[in-house]
Amino acid sequence: MNKQRVGIVGHRGYSGAELIRILQHHADVEPVLLEHREKTDTGAALRRGHLRTTIPCTGEAVKNEGLTAVFLATPPEVSMELAPAMLQAGARVIDLSGAFRLGTPAKYAAWYKEPHTQPELLTQAVYGLPEFCRKNIAGARLLSNPGCYPTAANLALLPLVQAGVIDRSAGIVCDAKSGVSGAGRKPSLKTSFCEVTGNFSAYSILKHRHVPEVLMISGLEEREFSFTAQLIPIDRGILETIYFRTTASSAEELLAIYEKCYADEPFVRLYNPGHLPDLHGVAHTNFCDIGVTLDASTGRAVVVSAIDNLVKGAAGQAVQNMNLMLGFPEVEGLL
Amino acid sequence: MNKQRVGIVGHRGYSGAELIRILQHHADVEPVLLEHREKTDTGAALRRGHLRTTIPCTGEAVKNEGLTAVFLATPPEVSMELAPAMLQAGARVIDLSGAFRLGTPAKYAAWYKEPHTQPELLTQAVYGLPEFCRKNIAGARLLSNPGCYPTAANLALLPLVQAGVIDRSAGIVCDAKSGVSGAGRKPSLKTSFCEVTGNFSAYSILKHRHVPEVLMISGLEEREFSFTAQLIPIDRGILETIYFRTTASSAEELLAIYEKCYADEPFVRLYNPGHLPDLHGVAHTNFCDIGVTLDASTGRAVVVSAIDNLVKGAAGQAVQNMNLMLGFPEVEGLL
Amino acid sequence: MNKQRVGIVGHRGYSGAELIRILQHHADVEPVLLEHREKTDTGAALRRGHLRTTIPCTGEAVKNEGLTAVFLATPPEVSMELAPAMLQAGARVIDLSGAFRLGTPAKYAAWYKEPHTQPELLTQAVYGLPEFCRKNIAGARLLSNPGCYPTAANLALLPLVQAGVIDRSAGIVCDAKSGVSGAGRKPSLKTSFCEVTGNFSAYSILKHRHVPEVLMISGLEEREFSFTAQLIPIDRGILETIYFRTTASSAEELLAIYEKCYADEPFVRLYNPGHLPDLHGVAHTNFCDIGVTLDASTGRAVVVSAIDNLVKGAAGQAVQNMNLMLGFPEVEGLL
Amino acid sequence: MNKQRVGIVGHRGYSGAELIRILQHHADVEPVLLEHREKTDTGAALRRGHLRTTIPCTGEAVKNEGLTAVFLATPPEVSMELAPAMLQAGARVIDLSGAFRLGTPAKYAAWYKEPHTQPELLTQAVYGLPEFCRKNIAGARLLSNPGCYPTAANLALLPLVQAGVIDRSAGIVCDAKSGVSGAGRKPSLKTSFCEVTGNFSAYSILKHRHVPEVLMISGLEEREFSFTAQLIPIDRGILETIYFRTTASSAEELLAIYEKCYADEPFVRLYNPGHLPDLHGVAHTNFCDIGVTLDASTGRAVVVSAIDNLVKGAAGQAVQNMNLMLGFPEVEGLL
Repeated sequence: MNKQRVGIVGHRGYSGAELIRILQHHADVEPVLLEHREKTDTGAALRRGHLRTTIPCTGEAVKNEGLTAVFLATPPEVSMELAPAMLQAGARVIDLSGAFRLGTPAKYAAWYKEPHTQPELLTQAVYGLPEFCRKNIAGARLLSNPGCYPTAANLALLPLVQAGVIDRSAGIVCDAKSGVSGAGRKPSLKTSFCEVTGNFSAYSILKHRHVPEVLMISGLEEREFSFTAQLIPIDRGILETIYFRTTASSAEELLAIYEKCYADEPFVRLYNPGHLPDLHGVAHTNFCDIGVTLDASTGRAVVVSAIDNLVKGAAGQAVQNMNLMLGFPEVEGLL
Repeated sequence: MNKQRVGIVGHRGYSGAELIRILQHHADVEPVLLEHREKTDTGAALRRGHLRTTIPCTGEAVKNEGLTAVFLATPPEVSMELAPAMLQAGARVIDLSGAFRLGTPAKYAAWYKEPHTQPELLTQAVYGLPEFCRKNIAGARLLSNPGCYPTAANLALLPLVQAGVIDRSAGIVCDAKSGVSGAGRKPSLKTSFCEVTGNFSAYSILKHRHVPEVLMISGLEEREFSFTAQLIPIDRGILETIYFRTTASSAEELLAIYEKCYADEPFVRLYNPGHLPDLHGVAHTNFCDIGVTLDASTGRAVVVSAIDNLVKGAAGQAVQNMNLMLGFPEVEGLL
Repeated sequence: MNKQRVGIVGHRGYSGAELIRILQHHADVEPVLLEHREKTDTGAALRRGHLRTTIPCTGEAVKNEGLTAVFLATPPEVSMELAPAMLQAGARVIDLSGAFRLGTPAKYAAWYKEPHTQPELLTQAVYGLPEFCRKNIAGARLLSNPGCYPTAANLALLPLVQAGVIDRSAGIVCDAKSGVSGAGRKPSLKTSFCEVTGNFSAYSILKHRHVPEVLMISGLEEREFSFTAQLIPIDRGILETIYFRTTASSAEELLAIYEKCYADEPFVRLYNPGHLPDLHGVAHTNFCDIGVTLDASTGRAVVVSAIDNLVKGAAGQAVQNMNLMLGFPEVEGLL
Repeated sequence: MNKQRVGIVGHRGYSGAELIRILQHHADVEPVLLEHREKTDTGAALRRGHLRTTIPCTGEAVKNEGLTAVFLATPPEVSMELAPAMLQAGARVIDLSGAFRLGTPAKYAAWYKEPHTQPELLTQAVYGLPEFCRKNIAGARLLSNPGCYPTAANLALLPLVQAGVIDRSAGIVCDAKSGVSGAGRKPSLKTSFCEVTGNFSAYSILKHRHVPEVLMISGLEEREFSFTAQLIPIDRGILETIYFRTTASSAEELLAIYEKCYADEPFVRLYNPGHLPDLHGVAHTNFCDIGVTLDASTGRAVVVSAIDNLVKGAAGQAVQNMNLMLGFPEVEGLL
């Protein structure tokens, strides 16, 4: 069978490297590396094999190479710059940045602190959280891959919000912790080894730009959703501890809601009462693991949701979306 | 000047080792090591110096050595076993365990899942959070050193609860993260390197035995205070992210309350708005660092409180209490 | 095609878990878990799927289940206890311990400090370093999988020893560093998180029990090979820095020897001069990466050899050996 | 008693921060911060206390402030730029860089790959390894503080070289490992958290610029001393594993040589046979810990030498030198 060729822009970053790792073993596609900036590597370290050739990051190159799809593992401003030419060249685009997630240029400007340069594309973009948007994804030409924090939050919250078992008036607290790869590969003091190791810090409280993505998908109001992003001294993984008051009377009742919602989902796993997910359980996988604790006498519930930020929170979910867009088995390359 | 001799039981554990480190440089006391169980070390690693002699852990030895005070850096059941003889031998006792914190045998039994064997001592014990109990500490014969989590929580919450600026009906969430030394030095799978490194997990949700200590000191009700204890892959440090709704209208207003309360406190530091504490800032110190974020439009506040669990959360605060009990400068050995 | 069933004893350990991970995606086999001791897990954490059933660890069970091969990821004394029954039941045995590596009971007793209980099996065992013993492996009934340190050392040294370019009279120094998983999963103070993190220590100098394996395969004498085992605060990976004097006049000359020797080897990779392997390059892979530095004016050479101790140093190489024994493609499940 | 004022340039770096930490508790001096470049901090994080004022980094400021000594915790090119004005202003200079270590401009140019801009100062500089250069240090006006690797290497090698018990013809191997702070605080990909954590790599083999410092002090020839610098995923500490052949017949014999040499040294500690130093033992201290293993039958010896690279390998040793230069007790501020 002929493999389809798909491009990767941003393959030197952490999400891009993860895309390569996944797509190299994918039965239906073959990855091609697109070079956005000048090539900076001066020589191959490995003597044999694994030499990577790259093609220029242009619409023409995309056309010549016959790329069916292109992954943009790039910052939002680069994604806005590159997406139009890729689409025009006939490739379907899967963007891993926040460029096309927020629906309107105004929202984008408010949370990303810069104007949106491709407002017309924004309206075409399909938000790619397969568990809730699957039917729209197949037809998408421009797919906006969800943010890492919103993926873990929405998978934990949406079934309960829809079921109406959360007392929204009391507010929901989402205390989120992420490994350092979520900050990207560009060197900075904040992600330097000596600054991070042995440390733990909150770097964004209440105003993280992933907040509107949760509100948009879950239907919550900003005042109902308090979100903190914190840095764990590990390379990968997101764990969110979510607090709310519930009308449910047991953990089992909440788990039954999840079970109904996720019965056929290949990448959501539930923990039995008394057990909770941790990051080792999801590392290097495309799973989102969810566990529940409930204090029946006071109606307080705590949900723990865990993903690998580079897989279900980025490259893995992007491949899941590609599988849906190109008609491959949804789990191909991801188990 | 003659240094007073003070004993340390449990000097092989992490809190005990920290006590040695601090007391070795203390101007007014000289540490003596008490051996609870059979001595297990078979030989000294270091060729010169630093050879430690230990004395038996008995009331008689305490009397013979003329120990003014004894630190019990031991599990609660051992502290209950040892405290009576130490007190009878005339030493003042500073207990770092949870044995004497909870006021009544019933509370102890409910949260520590075992009966209290020294109920009469329980009534004599003085809870040693200097910032709020200083006047009782000087006269204490049996001092109960606060737990690590409650220290960080109460220092963050008490001024605001007392000022009445927290909307208690909406509940307070305290999402706490601790380094691994908080679990003690006894080997276990849960604290094995390969299980902890690269991982992050919640190990106690809503029902941690430090919860009643927060309630007892802060005056909050259990239903108002949701607490989660989580494990960070670092050796030391506790950071608590505390969420609540407030009637205050700015971070400055909350900080002013803290400032008034802690104006003369040597070990509480406040961060300016826009800045937040992290664990590097408090590592190896007796400080509790506090920072505040507030969303004025919705009344949601987030307070971050950080300590070193082995210092302000254990050995350092124990020495601070000893300084108050024995009439030394409160900060001696701790700056 | 019918998958063959192969058993895993010791599946709760780190090497055993890695065997499960690899074999679950293997095209030709299906893993079956054998329970050596009483089952201790009391309940499944995950609500759906991934429930593992285990069979008793007996020859009868091996026969009933029709197991073609059994992996023993167990300590040497357990491997000696279990191997006879497994072989008698008709399964081929791949032992990951040191039980059957050293050729004679006397050598085993000298280095493992206990008598060998299966001396007759020792003579049948085939040492499974595929790059040098491939022709013997296919017919092996009892395969002794190499130790992690010797795998990295022998792959780096053997080609050069055979080519006669090492000045053996000056001695070879092999300074080896390993991640903590090499010590197994049993909790101990030495592998506790707080003892290991932020630390680095040498734990075995000159007398490590992996030394005779290097001597046996490489033909070096003990006095020619100085070996130190050290603990890195990471979970997995071995890097060996190997020093010797050489008659070769350039790094290229040494690399040419490696290239000739490993031209057709799927799991040995060479680095170009000026580049050196690190542990990230081999993590979660079955590769052994080798790089060379040479100071031509003094004839001093340094070779760096890196593997993942759980993959090429244990489970991966064991599967590579199984592939050779059962006639599957050598790389199946390992790329 | 009046404290003398001493300046610190480079106080934002890791060695500079360590200087502040030590000097803040020093009985005889008071630290003053000198600002080399434009001040970049825009506001104080801490609300009360610890506000640092800095003075310009000029000779005039040094004179006005009456600084007795200035520490240069700066890169070599900055040290060469600043030292002349500091000296002219009457301050004694303690340089932590490699600028003034190598004796001749030619050697500097060969190993630091840039011309020396202050050749006349080079001849005045005194190399400050107190254990071997104490008598020259008191009178030094320009003190060159030793490199971190050479400190650990020379303290381990010099007594044995002087005693003539090393077979130099067989060569000495020094396999050195360092925490990441040794690379400084400037962000770079090589010291980014995600690149370092879980990794281990050799970054300089045979040609590290600290090699000539070892040769200069120990009297060894380059061909006799093979040195590799490697990166451990921890923040601080250097451990060197040193291999050689010896005419000594036991570890005790080597230890006796060390004991005689270091009998009165406050900062060198020896380990008994069967015990070896590790990095936890020296972290945050000014000690150099040394342990010995010897295989009597083959004459092979392995010495392990450990220091904290920021203390005995930088700031601590610099203060030790200042103490000697200014006539304070040698250990002041360092125990």
